[in-house]
Amino acid sequence: MKRIITISRECGSGGRTIGRKLAEKLGYAFYDRELIDRVAKESGLAKEFIEEQGEHITGSLLFNIASNMTYAGQVFGGHMLPLQDQLYVVQSDIIKDIAEKENCVIVGRCADYILKERDDALHVFIHADLKDKMERAVKDYGFDQDGVEKALRKKDKARANHYRYYTDAEWGKTQNYDITLNSSTCGLDGCVDILYTIVKELE
Amino acid sequence: MKRIITISRECGSGGRTIGRKLAEKLGYAFYDRELIDRVAKESGLAKEFIEEQGEHITGSLLFNIASNMTYAGQVFGGHMLPLQDQLYVVQSDIIKDIAEKENCVIVGRCADYILKERDDALHVFIHADLKDKMERAVKDYGFDQDGVEKALRKKDKARANHYRYYTDAEWGKTQNYDITLNSSTCGLDGCVDILYTIVKELE
Repeated sequence: MKRIITISRECGSGGRTIGRKLAEKLGYAFYDRELIDRVAKESGLAKEFIEEQGEHITGSLLFNIASNMTYAGQVFGGHMLPLQDQLYVVQSDIIKDIAEKENCVIVGRCADYILKERDDALHVFIHADLKDKMERAVKDYGFDQDGVEKALRKKDKARANHYRYYTDAEWGKTQNYDITLNSSTCGLDGCVDILYTIVKELE
Repeated sequence: MKRIITISRECGSGGRTIGRKLAEKLGYAFYDRELIDRVAKESGLAKEFIEEQGEHITGSLLFNIASNMTYAGQVFGGHMLPLQDQLYVVQSDIIKDIAEKENCVIVGRCADYILKERDDALHVFIHADLKDKMERAVKDYGFDQDGVEKALRKKDKARANHYRYYTDAEWGKTQNYDITLNSSTCGLDGCVDILYTIVKELE
């Protein structure tokens, strides 16, 4: 049976690494940067814009509306859509297309919501203890030690805002996922093993 | 290493059954009715009162305060405490005592919060799709088919109110648990297997 795994994650939780290792172990395709590349190709939008705006709403809603109005220009299905909304539409279509075609692991980008009606999708959320997230953010992602806690909160808040804006649902809410894991409890490899076991169990 | 597993659960999710089967599989003690018996013995409170009031706050807060004032009578540590608060104190002490002594699975009763500082505790939350919860509630717990959805929501709301009242935290929130599982995805036995694997992994 075909299987799609979506991984949503707190910033610094190691969720992306878990997704990559899980895809390797299962022999599934892995979509993270690969998704950005494809969205860039099909939308003509810059990779940096997709990376930043495809998962986050930063600043106030008014700021975002204003920015979108300034940059809006493309005609989309006969209508003018703000750039960020165009991005969401293209991204959703590509995620649906990928899900139709192959076994895969998709990280972030509201994929859990976009694919929530599919019976072959397993939706995962990874979180972690603050201490571990801070350590990982500094060591692996190059965050400044100074203010790392605040930076992590801001990033997760931007993800939650983006998710709520496009789905009208709550990012990270237990009931939206088949399984949530604290990676501080089991370790990244432990999480990979647990998710691998579940996928095999479901077969 | 000693291990305590707390299981919080939506009504009708099968969380209690998962807890019982997991305890059997691991050879751990299982605390559910057994906890009520012990609380009854140590507090002198009626089992029915413990069963109902040990996890739920039903009705309005004012109603509860009024009931508590009416029934309050015992002197507790030199102070007069409403009955429901006395129950919470006794229950917490017993849960801490059990956790100190043996490998065990404890269902409900804010055990996750009461034991949240322990490194040997694994905190689990079980939820399920509404359709499955409704079926289980009617078939296994004798709920009336008529109004079962409303009854389930009321029960979970009472659990959430009780949890918030005593812990000032949010019942069912992803970040409060090491793992949350949708029992509709994996089945009750599947959940038992997954949790068993995790416990073994942690050893």
